[in-house]
Amino acid sequence: MTLHFSDASASARLPVSSRLEAYAATAPFDRPTLVIDLDRVEAQFRALRAGLGRADIHYAVKANPHPAIIERLVQLGAHFDAASRGEIELCLSQGARPEHVSFGNTIKRASDIAFAHNAGIGLFAADAAEELEKIAENAPGARVYIRLIVETSSADWPLTRKFGCDRSMALELLDRATELGLRPVGFSFHVGSQTRRAEMWTPVLDKLSGIWAAAQEAGHDLQLLNIGGGFPAFYGEAIDAPTDYAAAVVAMVEERFPGVPHLMAEPGRGMVAEAGVIACEVMLTSRKSDRDMHRWVYLSIGRFSGLAETEGEAIRYEFVTPHDGEATGPCILAGPSCDSADVLYEKRPMNLPLALKSGDRVLIRGTGAYTSTYSSVCFNGFPPLDVEVI
Amino acid sequence: MTLHFSDASASARLPVSSRLEAYAATAPFDRPTLVIDLDRVEAQFRALRAGLGRADIHYAVKANPHPAIIERLVQLGAHFDAASRGEIELCLSQGARPEHVSFGNTIKRASDIAFAHNAGIGLFAADAAEELEKIAENAPGARVYIRLIVETSSADWPLTRKFGCDRSMALELLDRATELGLRPVGFSFHVGSQTRRAEMWTPVLDKLSGIWAAAQEAGHDLQLLNIGGGFPAFYGEAIDAPTDYAAAVVAMVEERFPGVPHLMAEPGRGMVAEAGVIACEVMLTSRKSDRDMHRWVYLSIGRFSGLAETEGEAIRYEFVTPHDGEATGPCILAGPSCDSADVLYEKRPMNLPLALKSGDRVLIRGTGAYTSTYSSVCFNGFPPLDVEVI
Repeated sequence: MTLHFSDASASARLPVSSRLEAYAATAPFDRPTLVIDLDRVEAQFRALRAGLGRADIHYAVKANPHPAIIERLVQLGAHFDAASRGEIELCLSQGARPEHVSFGNTIKRASDIAFAHNAGIGLFAADAAEELEKIAENAPGARVYIRLIVETSSADWPLTRKFGCDRSMALELLDRATELGLRPVGFSFHVGSQTRRAEMWTPVLDKLSGIWAAAQEAGHDLQLLNIGGGFPAFYGEAIDAPTDYAAAVVAMVEERFPGVPHLMAEPGRGMVAEAGVIACEVMLTSRKSDRDMHRWVYLSIGRFSGLAETEGEAIRYEFVTPHDGEATGPCILAGPSCDSADVLYEKRPMNLPLALKSGDRVLIRGTGAYTSTYSSVCFNGFPPLDVEVI
Repeated sequence: MTLHFSDASASARLPVSSRLEAYAATAPFDRPTLVIDLDRVEAQFRALRAGLGRADIHYAVKANPHPAIIERLVQLGAHFDAASRGEIELCLSQGARPEHVSFGNTIKRASDIAFAHNAGIGLFAADAAEELEKIAENAPGARVYIRLIVETSSADWPLTRKFGCDRSMALELLDRATELGLRPVGFSFHVGSQTRRAEMWTPVLDKLSGIWAAAQEAGHDLQLLNIGGGFPAFYGEAIDAPTDYAAAVVAMVEERFPGVPHLMAEPGRGMVAEAGVIACEVMLTSRKSDRDMHRWVYLSIGRFSGLAETEGEAIRYEFVTPHDGEATGPCILAGPSCDSADVLYEKRPMNLPLALKSGDRVLIRGTGAYTSTYSSVCFNGFPPLDVEVI
């Protein structure tokens, strides 16, 4: 579907391809606004569940913690992975049962662990002895899984280095957990956010596959393998369809980890990114000199007001403008703040219509994940990204 | 002054060197908190004013828009540079007179220009024809200055590329402003934030110095040179003292721009950074394997909760810990979120005490500028940086 509007105003001439985009193209907004279509979230949940089969879906709340998304996912039977006390409180407030919430951040405040334990949360992640000690003290007897480091990611936004421990330390930590009176139940890993093709999981899974058997040989009665996230969103480059992708990943996991009693997965971006569109506007177009090869296009949203994942030009969004179909040229795309780090795409300039001008409304596709929560409270006096749900 | 507290708790053992640090070391905080000493802001204002002489000080509100800072600076006779409607409203609400507020962002929303004009703001920045057209339409007859591009910055956080135009375009824009019924009054430039030594201004000033005479020859009756910011804060590397620095800069400017009727300067970081200290805590210390050469130290604050300027390890803060003076070792310092981009210092690891552990309170010096406003609304469910004023 491509809807064109007869209204002559610039924003109404935006070529849109869905109910979500039609709303974002025409509704009045006083500032950059993320519009979320809850039915798209639901459809994506159903598609992922169809592929994930017996694996429990723990939605990675950090991708988008809008209460309406959590509420809808609770209704659909989703479980949740929380990164902090704030996210746990959110899930519980929207009706999630505590036994369906995992506390998956490996870096937890002691008092937040105690809060989670008292709220009935019983499953925690760890990748270090000090973390296990905090959990043992503040959530005695809890189930813990050990996060493994992944050093061979093909993801667009890799999660290597900061999280996880190597194989021999992971086995030591299982022992340490037992000594501390915790219940070590298994392992987790993360292939990296936005891993576009299921086949990209292969080297990671191959590398990790022996550890389950090694842990069992060491006497640990493991129950759970948490395969993390990595489920991709469409940003213009081809990705596998969600059901096919999820099914292929689970098949590869089952092959390399035969007989694992429980599987869990933590889609975040793959659940909500495509359900969101940001409406913003062009603030200014300019050249720096008469000899300048590139235009600059400044938007009303930038790296500090929602588009943090453009850092290093890692995530490359699709833009919809009222002049699409007209002549285009390369431009450097930047945000509205007085910070020169607030540039979205420069090394690989964007091709955008030459007719773009101040005041034009622009839609940014695939922005349902990792946008609203990265937005700063008021950098340069600009209010944070607004969010509307349809 | 170095105060040591007899209280045995870890936070109370922090070695502190000021009233500000003593408060930050001992007050109870439930989350990472920036503490600002208003008297330090006042002292810095007085020191800068002593050096800046006849140049008007327009505090760059974006550096820290806490209302108490604005209120104190209004009392002291400061003027203000605002980046947005939000910052203009803030300044006026704290008693600033509109004729003392400039709207210095070169990327302004048309409706915000109209708001500023109606509020009595009469001085605007521009670096492009389209911006002048917006100003002419929404603030007819306003005074405008043209921002010049600076391509030879020695700053730690340069502001090249994104802002300003070259010399010949600047002269064209003066003409264009006149055609549009605006009053072109002069030029601005910015040497780049955190330019540590006054002598680093020399190449920038040399490059720009001819343009004033060229504009006068072209028939423009210029009044104003806005020398921007760049005034440094102490982060551990030597900088010039504020009065000496400001006086040296003004002397260099007077020499290269003789007879300029009005000078203005826009210190932001140099006004408030040293007046703030962040109190946070260690969340976890770990190694990724038994062979790991580096510890990881995870703090309760990271790049998305206030320390955005550690991007690319550009700004390197000083840390105060309860184990200072004991044996140290290199560590990778990271934030608490589940985002692996949330790493503060890795390429140049920090040397921190080996005894650091989860729960230790840590102070981060020189954090009064560009911290609270960069903080995200709730990334990973962590609340934004709190701010307290003493």
